[in-house]
Amino acid sequence: MPRSLPHRLLAEYLGSLLLAALVIGSGIAAQRLSPGDVGLQLLENAAATAVGLYALILVFSPVSGGHFNPAVSLTDAVFGGLPWRDVPAYALAQVLGCVTGAVLANVMFEAAPISISTTERATAAHAVSEIVATVGLLLVIFSLVRSGRAALAPAAVGAYIGAAYFFTSSTSFANPAITLGRVFSDTFAGIAPSSAPVYVLAQLVAVAVAVPLLRLLHPAPTAAPVTEGQVR
Amino acid sequence: MPRSLPHRLLAEYLGSLLLAALVIGSGIAAQRLSPGDVGLQLLENAAATAVGLYALILVFSPVSGGHFNPAVSLTDAVFGGLPWRDVPAYALAQVLGCVTGAVLANVMFEAAPISISTTERATAAHAVSEIVATVGLLLVIFSLVRSGRAALAPAAVGAYIGAAYFFTSSTSFANPAITLGRVFSDTFAGIAPSSAPVYVLAQLVAVAVAVPLLRLLHPAPTAAPVTEGQVR
Amino acid sequence: MPRSLPHRLLAEYLGSLLLAALVIGSGIAAQRLSPGDVGLQLLENAAATAVGLYALILVFSPVSGGHFNPAVSLTDAVFGGLPWRDVPAYALAQVLGCVTGAVLANVMFEAAPISISTTERATAAHAVSEIVATVGLLLVIFSLVRSGRAALAPAAVGAYIGAAYFFTSSTSFANPAITLGRVFSDTFAGIAPSSAPVYVLAQLVAVAVAVPLLRLLHPAPTAAPVTEGQVR
Amino acid sequence: MPRSLPHRLLAEYLGSLLLAALVIGSGIAAQRLSPGDVGLQLLENAAATAVGLYALILVFSPVSGGHFNPAVSLTDAVFGGLPWRDVPAYALAQVLGCVTGAVLANVMFEAAPISISTTERATAAHAVSEIVATVGLLLVIFSLVRSGRAALAPAAVGAYIGAAYFFTSSTSFANPAITLGRVFSDTFAGIAPSSAPVYVLAQLVAVAVAVPLLRLLHPAPTAAPVTEGQVR
Repeated sequence: MPRSLPHRLLAEYLGSLLLAALVIGSGIAAQRLSPGDVGLQLLENAAATAVGLYALILVFSPVSGGHFNPAVSLTDAVFGGLPWRDVPAYALAQVLGCVTGAVLANVMFEAAPISISTTERATAAHAVSEIVATVGLLLVIFSLVRSGRAALAPAAVGAYIGAAYFFTSSTSFANPAITLGRVFSDTFAGIAPSSAPVYVLAQLVAVAVAVPLLRLLHPAPTAAPVTEGQVR
Repeated sequence: MPRSLPHRLLAEYLGSLLLAALVIGSGIAAQRLSPGDVGLQLLENAAATAVGLYALILVFSPVSGGHFNPAVSLTDAVFGGLPWRDVPAYALAQVLGCVTGAVLANVMFEAAPISISTTERATAAHAVSEIVATVGLLLVIFSLVRSGRAALAPAAVGAYIGAAYFFTSSTSFANPAITLGRVFSDTFAGIAPSSAPVYVLAQLVAVAVAVPLLRLLHPAPTAAPVTEGQVR
Repeated sequence: MPRSLPHRLLAEYLGSLLLAALVIGSGIAAQRLSPGDVGLQLLENAAATAVGLYALILVFSPVSGGHFNPAVSLTDAVFGGLPWRDVPAYALAQVLGCVTGAVLANVMFEAAPISISTTERATAAHAVSEIVATVGLLLVIFSLVRSGRAALAPAAVGAYIGAAYFFTSSTSFANPAITLGRVFSDTFAGIAPSSAPVYVLAQLVAVAVAVPLLRLLHPAPTAAPVTEGQVR
Repeated sequence: MPRSLPHRLLAEYLGSLLLAALVIGSGIAAQRLSPGDVGLQLLENAAATAVGLYALILVFSPVSGGHFNPAVSLTDAVFGGLPWRDVPAYALAQVLGCVTGAVLANVMFEAAPISISTTERATAAHAVSEIVATVGLLLVIFSLVRSGRAALAPAAVGAYIGAAYFFTSSTSFANPAITLGRVFSDTFAGIAPSSAPVYVLAQLVAVAVAVPLLRLLHPAPTAAPVTEGQVR
């Protein structure tokens, strides 16, 4: 049965909170415990994110869709999934969740609860990377949704994001909410406030690229789509 | 068909034994073989735990539920799964299994069969981490159970725990029985007796946090839940 | 419903593009971030490739089969899947996609858009490795297809390729299109133009070895095969 | 439909060959490419083995069961699966396959085609480890078979073996055929001929331990068991 908006917003908030704690917390652990090799730090961060994201989407997808990402909610609205009027509330819940999760990660690792990141990341190559990373993410999610295989999304999204941490130079934020959340932790996974707008803009450009591609690849969505999170 | 209590206790004992051997044994191997990088040790320990836990839950879940964890058994009782009168016996079997598994790990690696850990771990940040880690674990398990997807629990729990080793500062024990078992091995995964009560208390607090959250997120459990461990 | 050839070629082109960006991009990241240990570089490259390939096959298989590999398309034609007349167009789309993906990887990592690899790889041991790697890949894909389990191919192919990066000395290119694409990036995953023909030849020899083996192992394909990419 | 014995023996031979090439080949690559950290070598070896084994069992299980392991074939016979008269032929095919695979691994890495390992591994702790590792493997496989979930065996066995490489001190050979094959490669994964009998004996002791445990845990096998390798 469909869930009320407050229930769904709670799920998006909690899921986004745990996602940010996962991404930032594992980044802090990796940076502290493997000081000698940045690649190893990223491997630890990517592996934790991939498997943790799989579990988080499984938990929250039956309630709210398990987006944790305004770019996903926006694309879902374009394709007639999420009602347009719910998009702003979803985005707000996702951003608030990611900021709270950043604070929680800082607290769990005995850092200052809030510290503004000083990691500058805004380059043209990173912007290209964020477009590629986010287009890929949207292709993964909505190819599955539009072909009646949404129940595979938790595993596919976790796997894709784990790969994208390595195959893009931006380490694939691919999510405006997590981008904003990462501003609040001056650690491995952080991003300086001055760089965040470039990332968010690239992620929104990706929505504009992915939507027509998805319409071309999957013109006729499967009649009775498996709802996201349903048992396979 | 439902299994007799002695059969179920045997399964919980054996599963907890193998879980402790897995967690502590892979910790010893990691510490000995990768002496130069603690992050790499934790990666080896986390990867082995994640995939091994998946296999162990698959093995024992059709018999006893495959809990290996008093916090899980307690929450299952709250939600009307495990009968309340079985909880103490489950917890006892789990603790005895984890202690036996610690001894087995020590023996497999030619350490003294029993050595009391001297690793102090009790800090406020670790207590917060254990609450977060255990709440997350309970959300994963019982979101799946309450939405008719219990057959996905073995993969989801393995994945979640692998992530939680990295995204919490406590390395996510998330289980009172394994916490007590780890006291008996003065190695990578060990915990000093003076620190164990803080961990156990945090894990029990997590039950009190997770139960109302789960009721809010999944108010009406699916009518015909797939029993844990059933074929998908 | 069956898709038009242009749709299918678009899917093969895009999938091959993303595959090359994945393989080459994660190789560049690994080489730059883990300069001290080539094994760790290969682990990062293999892990990203394995999980990313799983996601990419899931995305494109319902449209075009998700081959991204002329050796796979050729074998599919031999077994009566892909029409013979479509094989050249598939191969062309795959090669063009992989070359474009190499350029994209270079751009994402701020390297020259095109650089010709200088990594010589042509040895007898590497040729043997490529035959073994490609025979293994074809056994995985077409054993599943011929036994009605094509829906498992995305996970199985990702897993197999991740392993083959390590168990062969050639690091398992196993794909003529990606071999040609890798010529255009003088980075970790590159291959010198003088070495590429040996690799491609070995991969085609593998088709000749794998086809009779598959006929022997699975003489009677399952009557109603699950089409690749269908929901399990 | 049931397959002829020669077909099944071919499958066991080929699967065992590829298994030994996988285990030994990835061990050689790991040792050469990560000379500075034995734990990292084992992580690379374990990760490749886990995911490769998953793919190999998927390929060959519909033909022969995908055992590649005399301890598994023996246990299958005890439980009424494999006919007793086929056990010696299965074991012979498995040993010959593993020896051939060791030679292939040596050739792929430009080592002498045959070299007898000089790695002494026979200690009491290793013998205990092999018993634990093999009991665990048999519990995983036959718990799934006896509860109608054999289709999950490829993933569960790969996962379990990946974990067991780390949580036992013997690195979990858990297979008499691969133990004998490893004698023929004086590399990372090798075992000296003088140590092999201790390992094989421990693995056979494990059969005697696992069978009554499995009878106790799963007294009544599911009426219509899913045949191993069948689509889930």
